[in-house]
Amino acid sequence: MRFHPVILAGGRGERFWPLSRRARPKQLLPLLSDRPMVADTLERLRGLASPKDAWIITSRELRTAVRVAVPSVPRERVIGEPVGKNTAPAVALAAWWLRGMGADAVAVILPSDHRVEPASRFREDLAAAGRVALERRAIVVLGIPPTRPDTGYGYIEAGDPVAAGSEFRGVVAFREKPDAETAVRYVEDGRHLWNAGIFVFAPEVMLEEIRTHAPDIAALLSDLPERPGRGTDAALERYYAAAPWISIDYAVMERTRRAVVARAGFAWDDLGSWAALESQGAKDAHGNVVHGRALLEDSSGVIAYSDGGLVAGIGVKDLVIVHTGDVTLVCPRDRAQEVRALVERIKKEKDADALL
Amino acid sequence: MRFHPVILAGGRGERFWPLSRRARPKQLLPLLSDRPMVADTLERLRGLASPKDAWIITSRELRTAVRVAVPSVPRERVIGEPVGKNTAPAVALAAWWLRGMGADAVAVILPSDHRVEPASRFREDLAAAGRVALERRAIVVLGIPPTRPDTGYGYIEAGDPVAAGSEFRGVVAFREKPDAETAVRYVEDGRHLWNAGIFVFAPEVMLEEIRTHAPDIAALLSDLPERPGRGTDAALERYYAAAPWISIDYAVMERTRRAVVARAGFAWDDLGSWAALESQGAKDAHGNVVHGRALLEDSSGVIAYSDGGLVAGIGVKDLVIVHTGDVTLVCPRDRAQEVRALVERIKKEKDADALL
Repeated sequence: MRFHPVILAGGRGERFWPLSRRARPKQLLPLLSDRPMVADTLERLRGLASPKDAWIITSRELRTAVRVAVPSVPRERVIGEPVGKNTAPAVALAAWWLRGMGADAVAVILPSDHRVEPASRFREDLAAAGRVALERRAIVVLGIPPTRPDTGYGYIEAGDPVAAGSEFRGVVAFREKPDAETAVRYVEDGRHLWNAGIFVFAPEVMLEEIRTHAPDIAALLSDLPERPGRGTDAALERYYAAAPWISIDYAVMERTRRAVVARAGFAWDDLGSWAALESQGAKDAHGNVVHGRALLEDSSGVIAYSDGGLVAGIGVKDLVIVHTGDVTLVCPRDRAQEVRALVERIKKEKDADALL
Repeated sequence: MRFHPVILAGGRGERFWPLSRRARPKQLLPLLSDRPMVADTLERLRGLASPKDAWIITSRELRTAVRVAVPSVPRERVIGEPVGKNTAPAVALAAWWLRGMGADAVAVILPSDHRVEPASRFREDLAAAGRVALERRAIVVLGIPPTRPDTGYGYIEAGDPVAAGSEFRGVVAFREKPDAETAVRYVEDGRHLWNAGIFVFAPEVMLEEIRTHAPDIAALLSDLPERPGRGTDAALERYYAAAPWISIDYAVMERTRRAVVARAGFAWDDLGSWAALESQGAKDAHGNVVHGRALLEDSSGVIAYSDGGLVAGIGVKDLVIVHTGDVTLVCPRDRAQEVRALVERIKKEKDADALL
């Protein structure tokens, strides 16, 4: 079994403003370690997959920055989308270029900006999913046992085990982000898992399902060169111009009969806002989480993030404080999700370009 | 009557960290306007005194920066003290160099980093004080009617009017910073005024009093050149090395019989901390005071100061938020005085030099 990681790294990451900017969105930030998150994502696979076998699909704008962030990935495998069309066209593209890699080839689609712990368990789960994907010609989606009735995630309803005693189950349905009441029910019934956007499959199986369920995308693939390289950009322009904007969940997973869901054994977080850093990294005796440098006097529950400078706090509680060279952000931890709205407001300012 | 302002600008201003640094203490910061405070101090005298007649006594370290900040003051009149010895040696020096300026010469000693409003009333009070100083050969100290029992200021106890109906009174005593109980009594008895460090006198009168009450300092003056200029530095080295560390209040004012106190008609604040900016400048509808650029969503009572970048706040209340390129400071307004303690802590850090 040989894993071919396909890392989706096209996000804009406005929720981590002011650290995230157009030129440096979340997946390029060192939120979890001293490395950009996309490099953490690759590092997490060490022992399971080689960076030489990895693909990264990002935006054309970010392609160079991504290549710098993960120099071990061959540069022709860092694909720059001329325009984002959600995940289905990207997954189709990867499956296309991964076809013919041999009977032991397994593709794994991975978001580039999530927290996953511990990495060892993550690799075990992927290895098990890869075996099932090959044995059953299945598309395995990893489902995360929910720890709270989150209304910000999509859910997967698991059905019966694929075999007696198996941890792998059929998929009853993919569920959109639920309302609060429904989310509580999902968590209570024990059948619903968070959809973390992690898919494991043999490339040919995915291609087949795309041909069946997304023939408009499949029809565009044969126009692509056999392998990416010089001159691929023009073909990608045509492909992305013609492809519909659609997620792989909607285009394929909700329709295919080959979907199988695995119950993940690792902890997962999509790091949706600054507040998510609370669950990450070392805390001091007062529950403060510091990334970079901070001096906090008589302060507790502070999430302090500095990209080189110093965050100094006196007598502050439960705040997010972010320092960059040209912006300071301060907000209560429980309002960190409002950063996106602030970014929308900034977009209307006349010097928005300097701030975003 | 011709005024010769002598502006004392040697302070270190740790209370406005992280904006204030060794190389840029409070008097060089644009806290009250877009100009450094020392330039505001000079501007406030417009119409009463010419910058050509002004003297500024600062530290040798800051001399160049002060000259840049107030280019209208002749450069040889910006004196750099090789070492700070409190105010008496500086005042003596100024009186020495201002002697022989004529019978209408009036020196006015001014701190460089206080808020004074309105400037028109300030000038009227100084003009009146100047007349009394010449007529009575008095050293007039301006006393500020206290608005609260502040324990951070020195007080002047006023005595009887110098003449029937006069606003000028004799000085009973200079009082050190009082305890809380005493401060309340001072405010209630109506006889005590805040000592703002503003003195008005004929240079020869001050020289005479220095000779009488501080003969050790007086003895050093004759070693100084007739006028400051090239080659003065060596003489200043000797003068400051030999001079005692002593305030003019203690060396002269508490002892002389020529002290007269005037009740000031202007509002005054020594800007002792970031919180003092609250009483200054325009507030938005939510009581936020912004210097520089800020975006404050659902926030109130915030003092936001940026030296070029942006302060962004969401849902924050009654905080001081300061952004500089390499430091962010956040603290509740009512704890802004603790910044000094934080600076003391930073002094013990191994890269203190980069932060102070």
